[in-house]
Amino acid sequence: MGDLLGVAVLGAGHMGADHIRRLDRVVSGARVAAVADPDAGRAEEAVAGLDAVTVHTEAEAALDAPGVEAVLIASPGPAHQEALLAAFARGLPVLCEKPMVPDTAGALCVLEAEARLGRRLAQIGFMRRYDAEYRRLKALLDDGRLGRPLMLHCVHRNVSSPPDFTSAMLVDSSVSHEIDAARWLLGHELTSVSVLRPRPSSGAPQGLLDPQFVLFETADGALVDVEVFVNCGFGYQVRCEAVCEAGSARIGDDHGMLVTARGAAGAEVPQDYLVRFADAYDREVQTWVDATRRGRVTGPSVWDGYAASAVAEAGVRSLGSGARVAVELAARPGLYAAGR
Amino acid sequence: MGDLLGVAVLGAGHMGADHIRRLDRVVSGARVAAVADPDAGRAEEAVAGLDAVTVHTEAEAALDAPGVEAVLIASPGPAHQEALLAAFARGLPVLCEKPMVPDTAGALCVLEAEARLGRRLAQIGFMRRYDAEYRRLKALLDDGRLGRPLMLHCVHRNVSSPPDFTSAMLVDSSVSHEIDAARWLLGHELTSVSVLRPRPSSGAPQGLLDPQFVLFETADGALVDVEVFVNCGFGYQVRCEAVCEAGSARIGDDHGMLVTARGAAGAEVPQDYLVRFADAYDREVQTWVDATRRGRVTGPSVWDGYAASAVAEAGVRSLGSGARVAVELAARPGLYAAGR
Amino acid sequence: MGDLLGVAVLGAGHMGADHIRRLDRVVSGARVAAVADPDAGRAEEAVAGLDAVTVHTEAEAALDAPGVEAVLIASPGPAHQEALLAAFARGLPVLCEKPMVPDTAGALCVLEAEARLGRRLAQIGFMRRYDAEYRRLKALLDDGRLGRPLMLHCVHRNVSSPPDFTSAMLVDSSVSHEIDAARWLLGHELTSVSVLRPRPSSGAPQGLLDPQFVLFETADGALVDVEVFVNCGFGYQVRCEAVCEAGSARIGDDHGMLVTARGAAGAEVPQDYLVRFADAYDREVQTWVDATRRGRVTGPSVWDGYAASAVAEAGVRSLGSGARVAVELAARPGLYAAGR
Amino acid sequence: MGDLLGVAVLGAGHMGADHIRRLDRVVSGARVAAVADPDAGRAEEAVAGLDAVTVHTEAEAALDAPGVEAVLIASPGPAHQEALLAAFARGLPVLCEKPMVPDTAGALCVLEAEARLGRRLAQIGFMRRYDAEYRRLKALLDDGRLGRPLMLHCVHRNVSSPPDFTSAMLVDSSVSHEIDAARWLLGHELTSVSVLRPRPSSGAPQGLLDPQFVLFETADGALVDVEVFVNCGFGYQVRCEAVCEAGSARIGDDHGMLVTARGAAGAEVPQDYLVRFADAYDREVQTWVDATRRGRVTGPSVWDGYAASAVAEAGVRSLGSGARVAVELAARPGLYAAGR
Repeated sequence: MGDLLGVAVLGAGHMGADHIRRLDRVVSGARVAAVADPDAGRAEEAVAGLDAVTVHTEAEAALDAPGVEAVLIASPGPAHQEALLAAFARGLPVLCEKPMVPDTAGALCVLEAEARLGRRLAQIGFMRRYDAEYRRLKALLDDGRLGRPLMLHCVHRNVSSPPDFTSAMLVDSSVSHEIDAARWLLGHELTSVSVLRPRPSSGAPQGLLDPQFVLFETADGALVDVEVFVNCGFGYQVRCEAVCEAGSARIGDDHGMLVTARGAAGAEVPQDYLVRFADAYDREVQTWVDATRRGRVTGPSVWDGYAASAVAEAGVRSLGSGARVAVELAARPGLYAAGR
Repeated sequence: MGDLLGVAVLGAGHMGADHIRRLDRVVSGARVAAVADPDAGRAEEAVAGLDAVTVHTEAEAALDAPGVEAVLIASPGPAHQEALLAAFARGLPVLCEKPMVPDTAGALCVLEAEARLGRRLAQIGFMRRYDAEYRRLKALLDDGRLGRPLMLHCVHRNVSSPPDFTSAMLVDSSVSHEIDAARWLLGHELTSVSVLRPRPSSGAPQGLLDPQFVLFETADGALVDVEVFVNCGFGYQVRCEAVCEAGSARIGDDHGMLVTARGAAGAEVPQDYLVRFADAYDREVQTWVDATRRGRVTGPSVWDGYAASAVAEAGVRSLGSGARVAVELAARPGLYAAGR
Repeated sequence: MGDLLGVAVLGAGHMGADHIRRLDRVVSGARVAAVADPDAGRAEEAVAGLDAVTVHTEAEAALDAPGVEAVLIASPGPAHQEALLAAFARGLPVLCEKPMVPDTAGALCVLEAEARLGRRLAQIGFMRRYDAEYRRLKALLDDGRLGRPLMLHCVHRNVSSPPDFTSAMLVDSSVSHEIDAARWLLGHELTSVSVLRPRPSSGAPQGLLDPQFVLFETADGALVDVEVFVNCGFGYQVRCEAVCEAGSARIGDDHGMLVTARGAAGAEVPQDYLVRFADAYDREVQTWVDATRRGRVTGPSVWDGYAASAVAEAGVRSLGSGARVAVELAARPGLYAAGR
Repeated sequence: MGDLLGVAVLGAGHMGADHIRRLDRVVSGARVAAVADPDAGRAEEAVAGLDAVTVHTEAEAALDAPGVEAVLIASPGPAHQEALLAAFARGLPVLCEKPMVPDTAGALCVLEAEARLGRRLAQIGFMRRYDAEYRRLKALLDDGRLGRPLMLHCVHRNVSSPPDFTSAMLVDSSVSHEIDAARWLLGHELTSVSVLRPRPSSGAPQGLLDPQFVLFETADGALVDVEVFVNCGFGYQVRCEAVCEAGSARIGDDHGMLVTARGAAGAEVPQDYLVRFADAYDREVQTWVDATRRGRVTGPSVWDGYAASAVAEAGVRSLGSGARVAVELAARPGLYAAGR
């Protein structure tokens, strides 16, 4: 392991700045070589104190900057497609934050572009696959001890949603994590989705359908239900229970510290996903850096990003109609056969 | 509180014999005065050692036996309707095991008979309302601290089903408990039901659709989901989480004793509802005895029994068609207005 | 099981009134026949609404009242010795609240009196032996699955102590429960005790040594530690972990209902032993009534009461000296050989 | 943050090899520049695949190797003193695994040597201070919400002890972690220690006093008890409950994944400290690398290492005598005043 991997980071907002810090301070083997953000001041601020890094307002300029060997895309979703294609054109490995591309047509376009290259360059940022609890659940399901999984009961709660959150974003932004997790845990594509709408919470902004209750079916008949409640007010909670033929396993009920005071015993509930999944983000980026420096690409693929997009889009349609919506996927290119 | 209440117990099978024991040994203020069972030997065996009790093969003979002041119906469901009407005809207070009457038409007939009497005589055996955890959850929801309930997530698992269990019985026998609990906890009637069918577990008998996933909507827009899995193989589990506007509360995850041994920390899971709900049965019967001796009738009413039946029957229809089925209830007689 | 057992209740204070209610309303097979309390008004109030009960200001008068077949002693501790002896003199079965007799000399006197009778008449009120969790722990230890017990870690916390609580009462009143539980769970007498005194909590009354940390050794070398903290301020908690050669088991961490709200997940902590051990009290009295009506005496014996007293008295001495105090017991009369 | 910090690792055994991997693959900003181990083959194996690293059989040769700017001592305890002094002589920053020095005299010698330098160079490897749960407990105690701590109840269990483990090593090796944790959490020196010896487990090697129960008092009157049981057979468990004036807080009861199967609900218990504290080790080393590259020394100091040694040595004495042993510490050099 010789020199450090030079990474161009696209986007210097909340998530981009966190990844810059992570590349510089947490993970070994990498360095930030270039940063691009339309807001040059924000980019300058994010790299304060770093050596040998160039700052740009255009993404492509960052890709072409000296020392850039790989790209981390943390810009807003609508910019992802162009950035991915630009990275592909240069043969640069990419770690792309989710959603890979906000619309399924664009996702398919990226999928086809990588397929034409004939080799994988992109890893998609489904970081739950790197979370310690999810990995233990995946390992347990894979070893067959509990028999085949029949149902997943999932809960996804946020304290409150950002100002401009829409009813559709509960499905295609929040639930997209469960979509990928369900596909990964169960090893099958999701084939249908229904979105049920309980009466909205009075704690949700006017007009937002929150909570929602989303149901998926898999290709081999398993059922996945997801409560998504982004203005629950009391904490950030991600739970998943897999009900199998010979047992069930549940993650997400941890209490690292039990406090008893004033008539109550309990645990603090994390208020933010950056707290809950900090280790997962670290592990994700480190895995990527290490693989990249060895010339390999592992982890969630563009196919995974595409499939999540397609399922989410179907979910939004179900949200509108109230009916069950079948998910239709393009044929899976041979590049992704060995898959996940 | 002077003399003991003389009770006629109809049915001396598993449940009837347990209630005879309870009346004799657990609850105060009552005595078993008569027992009826078509199998006279079984009835004799159930009352061995008791004084002043007569044994009959006909239910009506037991109702007319000396010293009988009240009736506990623990015979098979198909016999309930006739027994209830016989008790009504004699003005005898009744505690009737669930299901009150297996079919909704019969349930409605009983409802109308009691309504014609103009006073309540019957209490229906929804014993979860007497379970300590359910009562705490009910009290919490009622005090308003967590805001309005939006969703109930329920789990109902048995180790294995009896030999002749049918797919419909998952809904109208097993889930009938959740039906009453949801109505009681949420304070609203259930207005629709959908039954989803994940692929059957290989641990279930051939042809049985097990597990099922049942969805209900309430009159004011709350959503109730129930996983029912009667051949789960690993234990008897009843859980209920109420998701409200300002918090959630969950019951059924108790571990009375945490055992750590051989690489695992954990709790024993009760294997039977008679273990899990023993206190609830005791409390139920005691409450009934006490109220009866004061000439009052409290607890779940015939209306509750009727409504459960109607919802279950709709559920069975949804199970057949795969579609959402609306629940239609008869007009509620004024007798039940103050209700639940 | 014919007529109801006529019980004389001595003492109509907090605990006596609760037992009167329990005999009348909760347990089957018994009735309150007489009540004695120096405060006749308090006694009258406690029996309001009961039939066929006489009220007395002298204990012996109650024992001699018509219909009295058994005695429940719930008067203050200093009155117990005389009441026990009076019951013995009349051959009446007794359930005596703990402490059996406050001083060890008096306890020994009662022990000898019963031994002279040559048959057991008294059951002592160590109700933890009837608690569901303790019984499960006892059964687990007895079945040998976890190997021999090596240590018990106990916690005994109260929200706050009564006004006139003394440092000695933490040992001889509060910890007396753990003393009996340890003897019962481990099946050996306690042979030494040490009381350590952490700095007192600022939440404790001036001058009260609270908390204390008490250590016991058993005859066969097991170690028992007890945190007793009677002004902990946050709840009533009783925990016990048995550490054995092949595993450990812990009771007392139940959460019947998990509530998540405002950044915290947790359970309500009961504030009172009457809440936590309500079922145990019921089961205790019922067991006693049933045994008594069959002419038998089971449950904790006078020997158990005596031994607890002796150990507690040694503990108070250790509290004074700071040193380890050996416990010395009188020879065990043959009457108690079959023992617990 | 420019070039990578060149680290000499002393010792290439189990722990040394793990730190070499960590410096190379997990933490950012550092590289392994030299390794020393008497067994040259073992050292070569540990650095296979690394660039620009030299291998030595003598510790001092590694300290003088090109590119060495800092030292990580992971050699056996008896070699620590000489290595620390050699690092001090060269002005090299050091991270030294615990025990800093096995005997208190040697520890004091190192303390004096650093004090003569007038600046801190060494950080001691008490990695629990970097564990997420311990940090949350520390933060909670420091913010004062629960009032002053009165007691710590600690549990330290291993599946089985290494072949040559002695009774003294339960105190000076295993409990040394609790010693440092207690000093750090409570913010006071430990002033006395008592070691109680329950009967040994039949699962422990012949002659080993296992388990032990260790009691400490702090300078301001708090009490610390530690169950140490290194052949418990069932798992690696580290628990700590802080009992304070207004509440208690407990860590170490995590269950990341709850599995329910075959009549039991439970969590897997980690079998090894490298699993349980993996993140803590990572965070520890990363913190050290970062501070070192900025020319600073933070974290546990030589004073901490010395104090732990002194308390442990007193504990071993109490183990021998059965009596309470007071801990005497040298005067604290001004260098450590600002302290922990």
